[in-house]
Amino acid sequence: MSAAPAPCFETHPWTLPLRRPDVDTLSAVESIFTLANGHVGLRGTLEEGEPRARPGTYLNGVYEEWPLPHAEAGYGYPESSQTVVNVTDGKLIRLIVEDAPFDMRYGAVTAHERILDLRTGLLSRRTDWTSPNGRSIRVESQRLVSFRHRTIAAISYQVTPLDRDISVAVQSDLLANEPVDNAHPADPRAAAVLASPLRAELAARHQRRAVLVHQTARSGLRVAVGMDHVLEPPDRAEVSLEAEGDLARLTIAARLPRGRPLRLVKFLAYGWSSRRSAPALRDQVEGALAAATFSGWEAMAADQQAFLDDFWVRSDVEIDGDPELQQAVRFALFQLLQASVRGEERAIPAKGLTGPGYDGHAFWDTETYVLPVLTYTVPDAVRDALRWRHSTLPLARARARVLRQKGAAFPWRTIHGEECSGYWPAGTAAFHVGAAIADATARYVAATGDDDFDKRYGAELLVETARLWMSLGHFDGPGFRIDGITGPDEYTAIVDDNVYTNLMAQRNLREAAAAAERRPGAAERLSVDSDEIARWRRAADAVVLPYDDKLGVHSQSEGFTRHAEWDFDATPAAAYPLLLHLPYFELYRKQVVKQADLVLAMHLRGDAFTPEQKTRNFAYYEARTVRDSSLSATPQGVLAAEVGHLDLAYDYWAETALTDLHDLHHNAGSGLHLAALAGAWTVAVAGFGGLRDHGGRLTFAPRLPPALTRLAFRLTFQGRCLRVEVRPEKVTYELLSGEALATAHHGEAITVEPGAPVTRPVPAAPTVEPVTQPPGRAPHRRPIL
Amino acid sequence: MSAAPAPCFETHPWTLPLRRPDVDTLSAVESIFTLANGHVGLRGTLEEGEPRARPGTYLNGVYEEWPLPHAEAGYGYPESSQTVVNVTDGKLIRLIVEDAPFDMRYGAVTAHERILDLRTGLLSRRTDWTSPNGRSIRVESQRLVSFRHRTIAAISYQVTPLDRDISVAVQSDLLANEPVDNAHPADPRAAAVLASPLRAELAARHQRRAVLVHQTARSGLRVAVGMDHVLEPPDRAEVSLEAEGDLARLTIAARLPRGRPLRLVKFLAYGWSSRRSAPALRDQVEGALAAATFSGWEAMAADQQAFLDDFWVRSDVEIDGDPELQQAVRFALFQLLQASVRGEERAIPAKGLTGPGYDGHAFWDTETYVLPVLTYTVPDAVRDALRWRHSTLPLARARARVLRQKGAAFPWRTIHGEECSGYWPAGTAAFHVGAAIADATARYVAATGDDDFDKRYGAELLVETARLWMSLGHFDGPGFRIDGITGPDEYTAIVDDNVYTNLMAQRNLREAAAAAERRPGAAERLSVDSDEIARWRRAADAVVLPYDDKLGVHSQSEGFTRHAEWDFDATPAAAYPLLLHLPYFELYRKQVVKQADLVLAMHLRGDAFTPEQKTRNFAYYEARTVRDSSLSATPQGVLAAEVGHLDLAYDYWAETALTDLHDLHHNAGSGLHLAALAGAWTVAVAGFGGLRDHGGRLTFAPRLPPALTRLAFRLTFQGRCLRVEVRPEKVTYELLSGEALATAHHGEAITVEPGAPVTRPVPAAPTVEPVTQPPGRAPHRRPIL
Repeated sequence: MSAAPAPCFETHPWTLPLRRPDVDTLSAVESIFTLANGHVGLRGTLEEGEPRARPGTYLNGVYEEWPLPHAEAGYGYPESSQTVVNVTDGKLIRLIVEDAPFDMRYGAVTAHERILDLRTGLLSRRTDWTSPNGRSIRVESQRLVSFRHRTIAAISYQVTPLDRDISVAVQSDLLANEPVDNAHPADPRAAAVLASPLRAELAARHQRRAVLVHQTARSGLRVAVGMDHVLEPPDRAEVSLEAEGDLARLTIAARLPRGRPLRLVKFLAYGWSSRRSAPALRDQVEGALAAATFSGWEAMAADQQAFLDDFWVRSDVEIDGDPELQQAVRFALFQLLQASVRGEERAIPAKGLTGPGYDGHAFWDTETYVLPVLTYTVPDAVRDALRWRHSTLPLARARARVLRQKGAAFPWRTIHGEECSGYWPAGTAAFHVGAAIADATARYVAATGDDDFDKRYGAELLVETARLWMSLGHFDGPGFRIDGITGPDEYTAIVDDNVYTNLMAQRNLREAAAAAERRPGAAERLSVDSDEIARWRRAADAVVLPYDDKLGVHSQSEGFTRHAEWDFDATPAAAYPLLLHLPYFELYRKQVVKQADLVLAMHLRGDAFTPEQKTRNFAYYEARTVRDSSLSATPQGVLAAEVGHLDLAYDYWAETALTDLHDLHHNAGSGLHLAALAGAWTVAVAGFGGLRDHGGRLTFAPRLPPALTRLAFRLTFQGRCLRVEVRPEKVTYELLSGEALATAHHGEAITVEPGAPVTRPVPAAPTVEPVTQPPGRAPHRRPIL
Repeated sequence: MSAAPAPCFETHPWTLPLRRPDVDTLSAVESIFTLANGHVGLRGTLEEGEPRARPGTYLNGVYEEWPLPHAEAGYGYPESSQTVVNVTDGKLIRLIVEDAPFDMRYGAVTAHERILDLRTGLLSRRTDWTSPNGRSIRVESQRLVSFRHRTIAAISYQVTPLDRDISVAVQSDLLANEPVDNAHPADPRAAAVLASPLRAELAARHQRRAVLVHQTARSGLRVAVGMDHVLEPPDRAEVSLEAEGDLARLTIAARLPRGRPLRLVKFLAYGWSSRRSAPALRDQVEGALAAATFSGWEAMAADQQAFLDDFWVRSDVEIDGDPELQQAVRFALFQLLQASVRGEERAIPAKGLTGPGYDGHAFWDTETYVLPVLTYTVPDAVRDALRWRHSTLPLARARARVLRQKGAAFPWRTIHGEECSGYWPAGTAAFHVGAAIADATARYVAATGDDDFDKRYGAELLVETARLWMSLGHFDGPGFRIDGITGPDEYTAIVDDNVYTNLMAQRNLREAAAAAERRPGAAERLSVDSDEIARWRRAADAVVLPYDDKLGVHSQSEGFTRHAEWDFDATPAAAYPLLLHLPYFELYRKQVVKQADLVLAMHLRGDAFTPEQKTRNFAYYEARTVRDSSLSATPQGVLAAEVGHLDLAYDYWAETALTDLHDLHHNAGSGLHLAALAGAWTVAVAGFGGLRDHGGRLTFAPRLPPALTRLAFRLTFQGRCLRVEVRPEKVTYELLSGEALATAHHGEAITVEPGAPVTRPVPAAPTVEPVTQPPGRAPHRRPIL
């Protein structure tokens, strides 16, 4: 893990300005400046291509397969994995100034700024540069990936001679099979497959338009990329176009008078298919290009802003008292939108479309961390993401059969739906992914009342995941036990009766029962009868929740609290993350927690714990949680806020919100941590806003940390738009649209009527004993500004 | 798994005669007819090379390395593995009859017999064959691998024309890099390394002697093989010799008159080293050849028989009532001798030197199953095998450091000492291998009183394994717990407080304490102080042994007896072995036992259980044990005999004794199951003889199964030779040599004085309820002959 410096953005409520040449932090900046719409993602590389860390152009769902090696074969192990492919790069616009290529590592940069604007959706750049032989130019660009037209991206590019007439050549490329770092350096077979994943199938050009079609060798996916250009030409320019194999290139050679810009608008269209032919895909992208050039840059930029205006008016989170977190939370919401809004039955990967990290796989964190945020901000994206899960049900059912189980076993990590995890104790055994999907389904249905989804998709997801629990669990006397599985804490695996898993399975079983009764048509289609429903309810009521009477806390799983304590005093800072420095067995058999597990249960299934249990459990697990996962700070923050540790919650909030902006894990360059970004919203809204939605009922219990003077957030719920404004001493609930809402404020039932905001005082925070973390593992104290 | 027919040997008390051309069962026959001495192993291939299944010439300790791939990397995973190499084949003597190569698949075999003689140690063969063009010959051979001269093997070969004068060519080869089946077909990297593992370094020839020296590419081991020949030439013979690269060949062309044999004695010498040069190794094998040719075939064969006479007089087991098992038990003892007697600080692999199975690795079964037999029959071989373990202590200490533990962590599987297991839940986590080494050490020291070994090797093995338990375990209130490990039952992994492991750790800790006190010099060298000894004893006294009060049985490990029962009725016969048809997690979380675990504890630590516990535990686990491992029948047999199920014990005895002779697992062709062979002795002597040696004290409780009329066995113990003769109603204990022995007969203390055999009646067997096995998993009922 390199300790690269973090990028240094100026603080601004609605933009991310970076005013220094960013060569050292390029990798993280490329991720942070990614523009995407859930379908196409373009990392924030510079137009001139270099310097760069990772080029990165991703199409949601485009991957290559490679054989997964096993040191010792085992029944049911996946035989191949999937890795996101860097598809044909259309971001490239290279510039030759006289005879020098424009490259900020040479010559002199006299001014430079890049700005990501969260309201316009544009990534802008301006660089003043003097070439090694003394020619000065200004390069300006703006880039967008359209929210309205999911296949389209566009770049407005302009170069201006600053102090004399200059000859330039501008090269606008489509480039396939760019050299990239090998994602699996230790595995020569994976490397061989992934080094040059695209096979050229078709190259076409016409006037200023070119198309390349490629196909992946093993997964057989066809990718078409087209570009077209609108040029504001100078007096004398020569334009030529080539297209062949892995390269299409428009070249503009021109003599530019001092101060007179050359402007180029480059439109890009991306399409892919596992079934359509190369000519069909070519037509598809050329059609999209025709529409895009017809509408033009300005209209497209205006569309983008209008789309975002609508988003922010429904979803903004306002913060007074911490400008940096204000910026971070809005950035987080913007990236969640970008990762999901036009995904349309594709996964939302752990890194969105911002980088190749985790091979581009989607995990349980999408349903557990990301979808709860989108449920109240971009609910249609939740519907689409869950329809993707639904579309993989045949694979999940087949996987369950392979595993000798009933129902559906969703993969721990995947792009296309097949299990790609190579380590079953923290993959296959982590069956809680099924409960996460069920939880997200139930939450979405309750928050939207989307009957069509419920009938056609939701009920089936709930029923098939419930059936898995029934075959995984067993009745042991009065209890229903789920043995030999792995919960969220990956430092404790293959355990009996993990409280988190059992409670989430309980919710899954109950929601399946409710859905089957609510949707008799779906129930009949799935052959659910009343006996089966009764069995689900009986199992749900009987799930075993290990509790240590002596300590007065829940045991994360059977036996956990009698395991040896971890010797934190003998664990140096350099030993973290522990899994890189210690064998699994050593971690598994001791009381050391990688990430919130029982604490996550107390958030998502807070209805299953008393306030006293929450306080005691939180303190117990806080002292044993090392937070070696970016998934941990969020639930720790939410529960810290709930039980009364508001300063600690504030620290966790900052940690999760700044995970990528401060590159806390030194790997933001591989892509953004979407779940951590989601946590920026979650700690604000569920932590300090106290939002809970147990059983589909929305309630609040807001309480600000001392640093904040105001927190306001907007939510979409069952067709309403609700605004909650929290101040230190009072809270105002206001309906911006929609019908009256019955909710609760710190346990007091309230009804918010249209046009009649409700204000309530904030009760005093409970007094709690201070808690401790393992030495060196406390979150950074957030300075109060 | 192919269902090849098993070879069909005639029943004979001292030989294994096979009188049918054995093409169909060649693979198993080659293993069974292996000649070896612990240093060199030659599979029982035919001289003419083909037909053959696996050529197979092994030198103990010669292996090649190959990179071990991991689907997901993990801290502490081994990066490479080791595989036994088929070294240069010196067994080949090809024959051309006129223009037809002698090959039993063509022409006609009119008579054929091969006989392994357990008293002479010779593998003899006689084949009458008529070539496709009508020439009839007789080929006779005898083969030995010398026990006295560990580097030497010899073949006496003779061809005789049966019905007319015939021209023959005889080719005696040394052949390196024979094509063999790939041991790792799924891994192209392993296949590439192992396809042609030997690199030619030196080839030399002189008169009728030739030497080839090769080196393995990655492990850098140098192998020298020499051959020399003594010829009884016919009237006219032309002899030539070539040696180059991978082939050395003596060719004899002769015209043989009808009835006049051509006889050739081929001497082979094998040497290898990781350090010595090719010329030095050449000298070494040529020196050995000079000595061998000087002594000649007849003297060498006489030596072999003398060696075996001495072995049988000290170790024979006589059985009246089951001639097939009489043959099988002697075969087993012979193969144990062959696997170990001249090992000299090398491992005894699971397959001995009989085949490439398990990559030629040694496991815990050597110490747990094989060494207890050798302790009372060939104790010097035990000393040598444990000195091998001792020689790997630096690697085991380093491995413990990697695993963040103290003491020494011996590998789960290895050739050279490094951990080669690619699946840690059934590899690294199976720390009981350390207790197995300690147990074998303590047993050897108690049974021999070998002070020198105890001081120089044994104490250190005991101390370093004890230290591992102290760092693996922890005090939890009054109990000492060992969490997160895997016991012998590989269908239940990563568990807390496995009874077997905890009891074996207890013995390890106590034996280490005793050794440290007994050997103050060693203790000082190892920095053992009285505090450490006291901690060992405190932990040993406090080990937690899970017991289910409700069921009245021990729980194999914490929580085992409350796990779901396996649905045996829904498990078809084709689903066995279960690990090939079911995922690990499904096996781990249910009450299904692959192999004796608690039952093995009740044998090796029988002193820790009451008779009632043994009876109840045996019945409980018998009903849940599927015996998917050949390691299971032996402890099941021993305990069945102890608790009173004598017929069942008899069935298990037959199963383990006939594992290879009947090829019960359809894989004897990959090598013999040494641990199962050891079981042939163990069920006889510990089962029906009731031998126990808890705490170093030898006791007996003999009781015959109904089928037997007599069982007699001889043991070496503390310099004595003891003979025990068991008849249905009485037992006689007799000292064949050595001083008086205090022992016990069914709990009654007796002393056997020299020249004064002691006879005691056999008490009636206890009455016990019948036990059951999972449907279809009972052992075959042994027909009473």
